[in-house]
Amino acid sequence: MATVLDRFMEGDVRALSRVVSVVENRTDGYREILAKLYEKSGQSLRIGITGPPGAGKSTLVNSLARQFVADGKRVGIVAVDPTSPFTGGALLGDRVRMEELPTDGTVYFRSMATRGASGGLAAATDNVCIVYDAFGFDITLIETVGVGQVELDIIDTCDSVVVVLVPESGDAVQTMKAGLIEIADLFCINKSDRPGAERIAAELKHSLEVRHRSDDTWTTPIVPTEALNNKNVDRLYESILAHFEYAKSSGVLQKHRREQIRRKVRSIMRTRFQRELDARFLSELNLDEIIDDICDGKSNPFDVGDRLYDKFCRG
Amino acid sequence: MATVLDRFMEGDVRALSRVVSVVENRTDGYREILAKLYEKSGQSLRIGITGPPGAGKSTLVNSLARQFVADGKRVGIVAVDPTSPFTGGALLGDRVRMEELPTDGTVYFRSMATRGASGGLAAATDNVCIVYDAFGFDITLIETVGVGQVELDIIDTCDSVVVVLVPESGDAVQTMKAGLIEIADLFCINKSDRPGAERIAAELKHSLEVRHRSDDTWTTPIVPTEALNNKNVDRLYESILAHFEYAKSSGVLQKHRREQIRRKVRSIMRTRFQRELDARFLSELNLDEIIDDICDGKSNPFDVGDRLYDKFCRG
Repeated sequence: MATVLDRFMEGDVRALSRVVSVVENRTDGYREILAKLYEKSGQSLRIGITGPPGAGKSTLVNSLARQFVADGKRVGIVAVDPTSPFTGGALLGDRVRMEELPTDGTVYFRSMATRGASGGLAAATDNVCIVYDAFGFDITLIETVGVGQVELDIIDTCDSVVVVLVPESGDAVQTMKAGLIEIADLFCINKSDRPGAERIAAELKHSLEVRHRSDDTWTTPIVPTEALNNKNVDRLYESILAHFEYAKSSGVLQKHRREQIRRKVRSIMRTRFQRELDARFLSELNLDEIIDDICDGKSNPFDVGDRLYDKFCRG
Repeated sequence: MATVLDRFMEGDVRALSRVVSVVENRTDGYREILAKLYEKSGQSLRIGITGPPGAGKSTLVNSLARQFVADGKRVGIVAVDPTSPFTGGALLGDRVRMEELPTDGTVYFRSMATRGASGGLAAATDNVCIVYDAFGFDITLIETVGVGQVELDIIDTCDSVVVVLVPESGDAVQTMKAGLIEIADLFCINKSDRPGAERIAAELKHSLEVRHRSDDTWTTPIVPTEALNNKNVDRLYESILAHFEYAKSSGVLQKHRREQIRRKVRSIMRTRFQRELDARFLSELNLDEIIDDICDGKSNPFDVGDRLYDKFCRG
């Protein structure tokens, strides 16, 4: 692995792909690599793009990536698909979208889709972002369908969060306002040439005013875009940069990143617990016999869980 | 608590509500209660009703509940709202839906919505189902929007899983077929008076035929319903009973429940780890100092996490 890491440090994109795979699949030795790469991280601005299926997030992300490149930046993209049966298929367009991106190494794309990874998907995504950061990408764009807890955990790791809606989301906005305002640093109304765009923007604006805290000096912008026609994406781009400047100068960024580290430490401990539990502890036990006892009413999962926990942790 | 448990055992619904709250909020002593109630559980048939937002799941669940009651059964309902910002609002209708249900104690309804509970939400839902089971409900209906990993974990605990689609889901079915077929024991095409109902049923049927395994003697039914007009829900009801009979006689049910116990034991150990980590271990540490070191580049979250893990688990 030493040579792959050497090539990684030299900026070799194929070495990057190797390292991302090792980290995504948690291949042996991935932790040591991450510990090493972490030292080189901390420079990349992490932007989360989230919204309901069909909001045009991929097109928007590609368009933003091209603007960053035009501005002399290097961009890493992670698209997270939680592979819920009801949101599936987001990955079918991977090949199409990659054809739209520059192929000169200024943009790197990877999609994450680990059905059943549960809490592990958020941790794996964060790890891939650390790899991107260490590789020298100035910007990391994380695209995710905003549907579940895992995706919210991912979005929590971003320095700036763009919530993408479409005019058709209008009717739903009433009920989801509180949650959206909580996570959004910026709103984007994509496909804004469709009817209803102004109404949804007005509704959001009203909710933002009502909820605005006097100690908060950031006014959440609502940017209408037509990503497909590359219309107004530059305004969204500038708003993202403005939010980054605000976060830096107000101390929000530093505070947020400390909170991030705190959560990362916990997440690392939790991941290790689960891995050791599955890989070593439970596999060495005769669980069948224990389950027989529970089925026969001689015991119950709660007492068994506690007994095994004590044995695992204290014993 | 002893008197509440006594009243619970006597079938007092207010005592049931108290116990459900204790278990949902993980109030002190909840584990001991669960260990005790678990002995009385194992009789209830657990049916999961899942599907995209707007598929009419609540109406269908109410309608099914009334049919079970007409058949002399007692029914507990849990509605799980993952409180994603994009699916929010599902709970607004709680009062309305409860007005539709019998008030003679034959049906009990509870909604779960624990933002930020992460993996904990699936465990908490399972615990509430154990309480229902011990209370003597013959049937437990779990309703959830099928969007994320937490919801899939919940659905995995059900004896029968009904996936509810609507004709409008048609276009999406192509891309989500594999995932749906994996989790569905029965399909229900609700609002089947709308155009497209036959097409989506035909598409599903085709996919089921292609994927049918020769060792599987269950043929997944596709039942068209109009829950709002109470039309054909009796056919769905009978299909659910038929699936239960199949699961019992084929051994699938027993195998599934053993797998359930295995996962429950793991989940209990994981929950306890997280609780002890947060409540005791991390709060006693000076994490600020540790985070300072990481920010200053003297350390990294991976090495810190490992060191703390060893201290916690071996120390």
